Amino acid sequence: MANIAVMGAGSWGTALSMVLADNHHDVRLWARREEQIAEINNNHTNEAYLPGIQLPKQIKGYSDLSETVKDVEVLLLVVPTKAVRDAIQSLRKVLTSPVVIVHASKGIEPGTHKRISEMIEEEFEGSDLLKDVAVLSGPSHAEEVSLRQPTTVTVSSSNNDASLLIQDLFMNQHFRVYTNPDLIGVEIGGALKNIIALVCGLTNGLGMGDNTKAAIMTRGLAEITRLGVKQGANPLTFAGLSGLGDLIVTCTSVHSRNWRAGQMIGQGKSLDEVLSSMGMVVEGIRTTQAAFELANELKVEMPITSALYEVLFEGLHPKEATEKLMGRIKKHEVEQISDFLNQDEL
Amino acid sequence: MANIAVMGAGSWGTALSMVLADNHHDVRLWARREEQIAEINNNHTNEAYLPGIQLPKQIKGYSDLSETVKDVEVLLLVVPTKAVRDAIQSLRKVLTSPVVIVHASKGIEPGTHKRISEMIEEEFEGSDLLKDVAVLSGPSHAEEVSLRQPTTVTVSSSNNDASLLIQDLFMNQHFRVYTNPDLIGVEIGGALKNIIALVCGLTNGLGMGDNTKAAIMTRGLAEITRLGVKQGANPLTFAGLSGLGDLIVTCTSVHSRNWRAGQMIGQGKSLDEVLSSMGMVVEGIRTTQAAFELANELKVEMPITSALYEVLFEGLHPKEATEKLMGRIKKHEVEQISDFLNQDEL
Repeated sequence: MANIAVMGAGSWGTALSMVLADNHHDVRLWARREEQIAEINNNHTNEAYLPGIQLPKQIKGYSDLSETVKDVEVLLLVVPTKAVRDAIQSLRKVLTSPVVIVHASKGIEPGTHKRISEMIEEEFEGSDLLKDVAVLSGPSHAEEVSLRQPTTVTVSSSNNDASLLIQDLFMNQHFRVYTNPDLIGVEIGGALKNIIALVCGLTNGLGMGDNTKAAIMTRGLAEITRLGVKQGANPLTFAGLSGLGDLIVTCTSVHSRNWRAGQMIGQGKSLDEVLSSMGMVVEGIRTTQAAFELANELKVEMPITSALYEVLFEGLHPKEATEKLMGRIKKHEVEQISDFLNQDEL
Repeated sequence: MANIAVMGAGSWGTALSMVLADNHHDVRLWARREEQIAEINNNHTNEAYLPGIQLPKQIKGYSDLSETVKDVEVLLLVVPTKAVRDAIQSLRKVLTSPVVIVHASKGIEPGTHKRISEMIEEEFEGSDLLKDVAVLSGPSHAEEVSLRQPTTVTVSSSNNDASLLIQDLFMNQHFRVYTNPDLIGVEIGGALKNIIALVCGLTNGLGMGDNTKAAIMTRGLAEITRLGVKQGANPLTFAGLSGLGDLIVTCTSVHSRNWRAGQMIGQGKSLDEVLSSMGMVVEGIRTTQAAFELANELKVEMPITSALYEVLFEGLHPKEATEKLMGRIKKHEVEQISDFLNQDEL
């Protein structure tokens, strides 16, 4: 059994640590706050993030990062997108032997438009301490994983051996892990579904129902697919667990932070009000900015992303944005569907 | 403005009548029960099906079918799949001039494996009273349409002029109609999503959560697509409103009858108990039988449909069926996704 380091002791990092501990691995869960580490080690709980859940004893809280990563071969990184570079820079200082990094973050960096795996590789440039980088993504509420409810996820890496290693570490009866070599598609799908979840929450906040939500999700997956394909992804990845599957779980659950942030905006709150009242990272907001920039750069039509960008950053009224979107879809559905595969026809 | 006959005064037939009336057409809504017709004509309500909704006065209730269809050019058929042949036989007796029939039913006939449009065409064989047949399908709860919430649907016919005619009749600000020439794909998607909704309800009844539901929906759309493609449908249709869109609305809403029937089965009720307690048609049950037969005949792998068939008709325990399903997915996701397009690799 392996020693595995986990950076990030939020709900998802903790739930994934539980899966690893269930599989008899020793998990070193790193966090900054001493009280949180004491709670993990003494009470075997992490109440702020997974209330009511008893953690396996193989999960040990660590505050010293160099101790956390000592002699580990695999490191799981579960931090918000904007904390990735800092985390890797800290990590690079204390690593003494090469690791495989599997990340479970969902975002794209505004400005650079880099995916998480690209940011990690960039931060390790000139170093031989990064063996491989992989992503774990799919339809998976942390709360349900911590309750051992049947869950399926996808692992992807440009090195198939790394995918198989991660698959073996996590796979068990409740948590099924599938591999997909399309790293770009898996990362893009996981990041961009948060945009669609924000818009679904927004239409709910405006008092619209399930019919509207289904239309937004359907067209949303189409525009995510278009952007992904333009970046080199396999279009079929977006029909899989890390694409459609994750989109469904994020857009149809009131537990999603992005959905809730969208709902508040639909109810008339400003972006600042929403951000201050959430108290947690809403990945989709920065991702909207990054995807909007990227769509312009690559000349990919992303009407839902553009509409949300205008609402968030340019003061467009949510109701006006939604009406424009619903009225905008072309009259011949099959043409718009073909846009998936034939961007040039736009 | 046109005179339009509507056969079937349930919630969906009534809501679609409201859309037509909003567009200033005169709607003749045919029903069997005299009290229902009196309620529609005197109170302008249809409380049993659309509680609390005021119907436009252009909707008139009719009990005499020959009067209903006199001089109409378009007839909307909204009856359960098993009532389609009876309805068409009655209709054929009273029609005096050719009509375009647009249906909004969702099923496949067990035994013959015919789609609704094929049943209609068959019943009109040797007659020149059927001008064209079209289908209207998409993510559309009747209750939300009656509240004029933004809704998108697809119309399809093998004759594009018929699609355009139907699109013009129904299209308005709240109810957006798109055309798609893929009649087979639109009908298959609408019918088979009820199977997946039953299974989603079933996993909920077993106490499983959103992660499981998202996995079932993702894999469910894949197997629907496989069957459709084998029958000649365009795979992209299943990524559109009548495929993915309708799947989302049916599987993620507790208002869906099929979902509720599945939930009861997951909670341990027998099929007979469920059917007698529902008091309404649960299309997905007969569709499961038809799709199971069809999958065997065409040698298409449909694990979710097969599992549900075994639960409904062969006594397999729902929990066992779900565990088998979740464990069954291949380890390499991209292979299973490619099954969409390359059935021979199975």
